[in-house]
Amino acid sequence: MKYHVWEVVENNFSVEENYKNETLFALGNGYLGTRGTLEEGYSGPKGTGLEGTYINGFFETETIRYGEIAYGFPEKSQTMLNVANGKKIRVFAEDEEFNMLTGTVENYSRVLDMKNGTLKRSLIWRSPKGRTLKIDIERIVPLSHKHLAMIRYEIRPLGQDLKLQIISSLDGDVTNLTVENDPRVGSGLQGRALEMETIRTRDGFGLLRQKTKNSGQTIVSSMENILETTCSFECKSFNETYSAHTVYDINAKADEPILLTKYLVYATSHDYAVEILEPKTEELLRSAVKEGYESIKSEHIKFLDEFWKKADIEIKGDPSLQQGIRFNLFHLLQSAGRDGRTSLAAKGLTGEGYEGHYFWDTEIFAMPFFTYTNPEISKQLLKYRHSILDKSRDEARTLAHPKGAKFPWRTIAGEECSAYYPAGTAQYHINADIAYTVDRYVWATEDFDFLINYGAEILFETARVWVDVGAYIPACGNKFCINGVTGPDEYTAVVDNNCYTNMMARENLYCAVKAAEWMKENAPEEYKRLASRINLEENELKEWKRAADEMYIPYEESTGIYPQDDSFLRKKPWDFANTPKEKYPLLLHFHPLVIYRHQVCKQADLVLALFLLGEHFTFEEKKINYDFYEPLTTHDSSLSTCIFSIVASEIGYYKKAYDYFMCTARMDLDDHKGNTKNGVHTANMGGTWMCIVNGFAGMRINNDTLCFNPYLPEQWEGYSFRLTFKNRQIQVTVEKEFTTYELLEGSPIKLFHCGKELLLSTSLKEKTRNQADIM
Amino acid sequence: MKYHVWEVVENNFSVEENYKNETLFALGNGYLGTRGTLEEGYSGPKGTGLEGTYINGFFETETIRYGEIAYGFPEKSQTMLNVANGKKIRVFAEDEEFNMLTGTVENYSRVLDMKNGTLKRSLIWRSPKGRTLKIDIERIVPLSHKHLAMIRYEIRPLGQDLKLQIISSLDGDVTNLTVENDPRVGSGLQGRALEMETIRTRDGFGLLRQKTKNSGQTIVSSMENILETTCSFECKSFNETYSAHTVYDINAKADEPILLTKYLVYATSHDYAVEILEPKTEELLRSAVKEGYESIKSEHIKFLDEFWKKADIEIKGDPSLQQGIRFNLFHLLQSAGRDGRTSLAAKGLTGEGYEGHYFWDTEIFAMPFFTYTNPEISKQLLKYRHSILDKSRDEARTLAHPKGAKFPWRTIAGEECSAYYPAGTAQYHINADIAYTVDRYVWATEDFDFLINYGAEILFETARVWVDVGAYIPACGNKFCINGVTGPDEYTAVVDNNCYTNMMARENLYCAVKAAEWMKENAPEEYKRLASRINLEENELKEWKRAADEMYIPYEESTGIYPQDDSFLRKKPWDFANTPKEKYPLLLHFHPLVIYRHQVCKQADLVLALFLLGEHFTFEEKKINYDFYEPLTTHDSSLSTCIFSIVASEIGYYKKAYDYFMCTARMDLDDHKGNTKNGVHTANMGGTWMCIVNGFAGMRINNDTLCFNPYLPEQWEGYSFRLTFKNRQIQVTVEKEFTTYELLEGSPIKLFHCGKELLLSTSLKEKTRNQADIM
Repeated sequence: MKYHVWEVVENNFSVEENYKNETLFALGNGYLGTRGTLEEGYSGPKGTGLEGTYINGFFETETIRYGEIAYGFPEKSQTMLNVANGKKIRVFAEDEEFNMLTGTVENYSRVLDMKNGTLKRSLIWRSPKGRTLKIDIERIVPLSHKHLAMIRYEIRPLGQDLKLQIISSLDGDVTNLTVENDPRVGSGLQGRALEMETIRTRDGFGLLRQKTKNSGQTIVSSMENILETTCSFECKSFNETYSAHTVYDINAKADEPILLTKYLVYATSHDYAVEILEPKTEELLRSAVKEGYESIKSEHIKFLDEFWKKADIEIKGDPSLQQGIRFNLFHLLQSAGRDGRTSLAAKGLTGEGYEGHYFWDTEIFAMPFFTYTNPEISKQLLKYRHSILDKSRDEARTLAHPKGAKFPWRTIAGEECSAYYPAGTAQYHINADIAYTVDRYVWATEDFDFLINYGAEILFETARVWVDVGAYIPACGNKFCINGVTGPDEYTAVVDNNCYTNMMARENLYCAVKAAEWMKENAPEEYKRLASRINLEENELKEWKRAADEMYIPYEESTGIYPQDDSFLRKKPWDFANTPKEKYPLLLHFHPLVIYRHQVCKQADLVLALFLLGEHFTFEEKKINYDFYEPLTTHDSSLSTCIFSIVASEIGYYKKAYDYFMCTARMDLDDHKGNTKNGVHTANMGGTWMCIVNGFAGMRINNDTLCFNPYLPEQWEGYSFRLTFKNRQIQVTVEKEFTTYELLEGSPIKLFHCGKELLLSTSLKEKTRNQADIM
Repeated sequence: MKYHVWEVVENNFSVEENYKNETLFALGNGYLGTRGTLEEGYSGPKGTGLEGTYINGFFETETIRYGEIAYGFPEKSQTMLNVANGKKIRVFAEDEEFNMLTGTVENYSRVLDMKNGTLKRSLIWRSPKGRTLKIDIERIVPLSHKHLAMIRYEIRPLGQDLKLQIISSLDGDVTNLTVENDPRVGSGLQGRALEMETIRTRDGFGLLRQKTKNSGQTIVSSMENILETTCSFECKSFNETYSAHTVYDINAKADEPILLTKYLVYATSHDYAVEILEPKTEELLRSAVKEGYESIKSEHIKFLDEFWKKADIEIKGDPSLQQGIRFNLFHLLQSAGRDGRTSLAAKGLTGEGYEGHYFWDTEIFAMPFFTYTNPEISKQLLKYRHSILDKSRDEARTLAHPKGAKFPWRTIAGEECSAYYPAGTAQYHINADIAYTVDRYVWATEDFDFLINYGAEILFETARVWVDVGAYIPACGNKFCINGVTGPDEYTAVVDNNCYTNMMARENLYCAVKAAEWMKENAPEEYKRLASRINLEENELKEWKRAADEMYIPYEESTGIYPQDDSFLRKKPWDFANTPKEKYPLLLHFHPLVIYRHQVCKQADLVLALFLLGEHFTFEEKKINYDFYEPLTTHDSSLSTCIFSIVASEIGYYKKAYDYFMCTARMDLDDHKGNTKNGVHTANMGGTWMCIVNGFAGMRINNDTLCFNPYLPEQWEGYSFRLTFKNRQIQVTVEKEFTTYELLEGSPIKLFHCGKELLLSTSLKEKTRNQADIM
C-alpha cells in the first residue's frame, strides 16, 4: 500500500469503507464542518453512512430523562445539530441518475489534500444503459472564510451528446442520529429538531431559515449556484417544504465541460441578531460569489501554508506515519473553534459522537499542539472557557460551593450536560486541567493581556472550588484531602484523594497564587478591579497556598507507588487472563459496579500526572509507577496510549513508546477503535503531536524554559518540527546522533538539551549530540 | 384530642387532610388494596387527593430511559398499577349530586375500626337546595377473601320524599400518578396503562377485562350490586368505553332506608389462566353474593381476632401510642402478600410511592413482627423470595458473578428495577438481609421443611455471590474484603468494606454453612438433590467458611469505633450547624456528590449492625458507636429512628429510646414525614413493633434461646405482648418492677430474663424483677 504523505487517497469506493471514510474525508474550518459524504447522496444499506453538516456551538436541547433523578442532575441536553445539507447535487443523464452504486465507476479517486485543504473526487461513470460521464468534484470549507463552503462540480459526457439534468439542493429535512444505548455514538434527540421558518428560492439561489424547537436558536443556510458551459441550458428553481432546489436542464455536448460552482453560506443567531441574520447571510453569500472560487481557494491555501509552516512535523523514513501525523494535525485545525465562543469537540465537526460536546480533551490533549505552534488558537479556545465562567459559577452553586466556578465535564454552551455524574460531573479535575492550560499558555506566549483580562479570573475561580471541595482531615494527618471525585480514569469513580486530581489541584492553587502575585506587581489596578468584581479577599490567597502546601498526595513509601486513589491498592485484581478480546472495551460488557470494584484502568491517570507534573516525580518513581499501572490499563479510552507513549519515551522504554505511538498516529486512518465512523478522535490527534514533541523529543517546560531530551526511534531516519515559544520560532531536527535547534524568528533564547544549557540565537544553528539511551 | 385505642376517627372532613387521610383509611388484604377515597369521588383542588386501587404484584413495565446508560442497567420499570375503581357510587337527590364539598355535612364521622377491619362513614348531608340525606357507609376488604371488597351503602332521605338516583360504577379509566422528579412519590408511567378488552354489564352487574400494554398482564374487575328497600325503584345498566354502570332510580320515601350492597371481585392473569379468568372472577363474585355481606364480614372479623390475639401489643397509660401501634400492626397485616408470589411493598397497598416495589424493608423491618407473631406470613413472604431466585441468578450474571443469586434492590416480579445503582443495585446487603431473615425464621419456627425446600437454596445462592464479590486483599492483611458496594446508609454510596455489609455477609456465609451441615445430617437425600440441582460442590462450603472466618471488619482500636466503611472516618464533616431545617431531607437539596463526600448518614447503618448482630459487639462498643454515629445521622430515611430507639434501649439511653420511639409509633398518623399521602411507611411500622419488643423488652435470640432485658418507659404503667416462638405462645407483660412471662401454648421452654435462666411451663407464670437501670 502506498502512503501519500500529504494526501489521503481512496481508489475504490466501497460500502464497507463508506461510513468511516465519510469521517476521514470530512472538511471543516472550526465553525462549519461537513462529512465527506457524496454530493449525489448514498444509496447503500442502512447504517453504512450518515449525512452530516455541523456548525460549532449550534445545538438543540431536550429534557434529560433519568430513570431516577436526584438533586442537581443536569436538566437539559445539548446536541450539536445536523443542519441543512448544502452539498446535494444530483445528476441525471437522460433517464438515469448518477450513483456510485449503479452502473460502473472507473478511473476513480477521492483525495483529501491536506496541504491545500481540498477534497477531490474524479471518476468516469458508465451508466447501466451505457452512457458515460466524466465527473470531477472539488470541495473546500475555507479556513479563511468562516461561514462558507464551496463545491466545484465538473461534468462532461464522454463520446455522445446527452440531455443532462443537474439538481442542486439545499436540504433542510435533516435529523440527528438517534442512539440511546451508547453515549459515545449519538444522542437521544428524536426526530426533526429544526423547524422551517422561511424558504426562498430563485434561479441558482436558495435560502432556508430554520429554528430549533427547544433551544430557540436560528440558522440560515443559503446557496448560490453558478453554471458555466458552452452548452445550452435552462435553469429553474423550486422548493419543497424543507428544501430549495435549482434545476439545470442542459443539452450537453460530447466531451464539452459543464462546470457548476456552488457556494454555501451558513450563519446562526449566535453570529448575528435574528433580525439581520437573513440579510447578513445573503451579503456573505454575495461577497463570496463576487470574490470567486479561485480567489477564495488561494486565501484558504495561504492560511494553510501559514499553518503548516508553524505546525508541520516531518518524519523521514516512514510515509505511513508521516501521513498519519499530518492527517491528525489537519483535523485538529479543522475542528478548533476560533471565535472565542466555541471550542473543540471530542469528534471535532466530523460526526455526532459525544453529541458534539467539549471535554477536557480540548485543554489537555489538543491544546498543547496549538499553544506551541499556533497560540492564537489556544487563546480563542481559552476565551471560550472564560465565556462560560458564569454558567460554571452556577454549577458550582448547584454543587454547594459558595464561591468559585466548576467547569462542566461536557457541554456546548457552558451548562453541565453529563447525565452520568460518576464519570461526568464528578471529574472535578477538569477545573485544574483548564487552569493548568491557562498557566502554560500564558507563560509559553507571555500573553499577559490574556492573563489580566481572562486567565486570572479562571485561575482564581477554579482555585476557590478546590479549597471548598477539600478539607483538612485529622485522620490523614490534617493534610488537605479531596474526597468524592473522579479522576481521569473512568474505570474508577467517585473516590477519595485521586492522586492526579490532588496534584493538579495543588498546581491550580499555586498557579492562582502566582497569577495574583504577578498581577499585584505588574497590573495592580486591573487586579484591584478584578478582585473587587469577584469579591476576592486577600486571605483567600493564603487559603489557596495553605491548601496547596498541605495537599495530601497518596504515596506508598515501601514500594514507591503513588496509589491512584485511597482505595486503589486495596481493590480486587481484574482477571485479565480470562477476559477475551471481544469483552473490550469493558464498559460495554460489564456493569460499572463490577469495573469500579476491580483494579483496572481505562486510561492513563497517575501516568498522566507523571507527564504533566513530571517535575514532582523522580526518574525512579516514574519507572516504578509506569511499571505498576501499565499492566492494569486497558486503553479503552482513546486518550490513553499517547500518554503511555510519552512517559515510556521519558523512562527509556523506546519500543513501548513506539508501539503506543503507532496506536495513536493512525488511529482514525486505520480505524483502530472501530468507531471512526462516528467522528475523528481529536484528543488522540493532539496526543500524536505530543508523542513526538514531548515523547521522542522529550520537550518539557521547566522553570519557564524549553528543555529537550530527544532520541530517534530506530525505525526512522529523522524527524523535525517547529515550536512557537515566547514569540520565537524554533525548528528542532532530530537525527540519529545529533539534534539541531534553529531559531527561525525572535531574539536569542536559552534552552536545555539533555540537561545542557544552550543559548540559541538567530545566527546560530545548534547541533548537539543526543544522550545515550537510558537503558 | 381523644385517642381511640382501636379506632382512627375523623370528625371533620377537610381538603387539607384529605390526601393523607386517604392513605390512613386505606383497606387491604395483602392482595387487594384500596385507598380511603370517597365513594362519590372527590372534587377538591388538584393535588389534594388520589384515587387508587391496587393489586399486589400486578404491574406495568416501561422502558427505563437513562440520560446515559451503561451495561447492565435495568431496562424495564415495574409499576404497581392503579386498577379499575369499583368503589364509585354517586348519589343524586333530585337534581343535586351528593358531594362532601357542597351543601353542608353534619354529624360526620369516618372511623377506621382496626379490631374489626372496617371503614365506616356516617353523615347527614344538607344539599345546597336544602334536601337532606342520612348516609351510612361501611367498607371491607376481607382478609379472609383474597379477591373481594365490599361496600354497604345506606341512604335515607330525611323529612321528605325524594327522587333519588344511585349510580354504582366500575371505572376502568384509570392512570397512575406521574411524578418523574421524586422517586419516592410516583413513577414515570405516562397515561393509561390498561387497555380495554371486554366490558359487560347487566342490571346490577359489571365486568371489565383489561390488559396492560407492555407487561401483557390481564385483570378482570367485576361488581355486583344488590339494592334493598321498601321504596319502588327501577334499575338499568349501561357502559361507557372504560366503565360499567348500574343506575337505580328510586322513589325514596322520607326516612325510609335504602341499602345498596356492592361486591367487587378482582382477579388477574397471575391468579388464573387468561382463558378462565372471566368465568373464575364471575364465580368468585357469585359465591360472595351467595355467602352474603354479613357472613363474610364475620369471617373477616374472625381472621382479625386471631391476628390480634397473637399480635396485639397493649400499652397501659398512653392511648395515643396505643392507637399508633395498632394502626401500624393493622397496616402491616393489610400490606403483606400471603400467596408466596408477592411480598410487602414499601408503601403496602396504600399508595403509589416507590412504585409498589419491595425492598429489604420487608425482611429487616416488617418480617420480625410476622416471624414472632404470625410466622405463616413470614413463610409466604420468604417463599416469594425463593420464587424470584431464577431472576436473581440472571441478575448475578449481569453483575459478572458466575454463580449464585443477587436479589434485586427494588422489584415487583423479581427483575432489578433500580434505575440509580449507587443507591440501588449496589446495595448487595439485601442478599444478606434476606439470608438473615431466612435463618431467623427457620430457627424461630423450627420449620425445617421450609429450610429444606426453600430456605437452604436461598442461603446457598446468596453465599455464592459473597465469595465472588469479595476477595482476599494483600494490602488488608489478606483479609476477605468486599469492595464497591453500598451499605444501608444511602448518604454514602459505593464504598469499600461497609462494616454492616461485611458483618452481614459473614453471617450469611455462616448460615449457609450451618444449613448445609444441618441438611447433610438431617435430610441427606434432599441435600444431595439440591446440591446436584444447583451444582453445589463440597469445596464451596469450605470457601464460604474461609471467607467468613477471614472477613475484614473495619475497626479502629484506638477509639473502639467501627468505621461505616474504609473511607468514612476520612470524610469532611457535614456542617450541621449551618444546615437549616428546610434543607432536609438532604437528598432533595444537595447533589449526591456533595452528600457522599461528607460524613453524614441518612439512616442507621453500623447502628443497625449493633442491633441485628449485637452478639459481636461489647456493651461498651455499642455505646461508643452509638455515640459516634448518632450526631452524624439525619434520619432522613423512615427506617432509621426505630433502630436508634432499639439500640438506645439496650445501652440504657431510655429517654432517647422513648423519643425515637415517639417518631416511629405515630409517623403516619401524625404525618411526621409530610408524605403519608403517598402511602404508609411499612418498614417503620414494623420498626414500631421492634422498638417495644426488641427495644423496651430487650428481646433477642441468643444461642437459639429467647432472652429479654425489659424495662418500662417511665411514661407508661405497663405493656404486654405475645410472641410465637418454636411453636409456643408466650405472653410478656412488663410492669414497673416486674415482668411476667406466661406460656399460653406449647411445651415448657427455657428463656433468659436479664441474663437469668427461667424454665417457663404451662402451669407457671414467671414474674421476675426487672434489672436496675443500666445508667
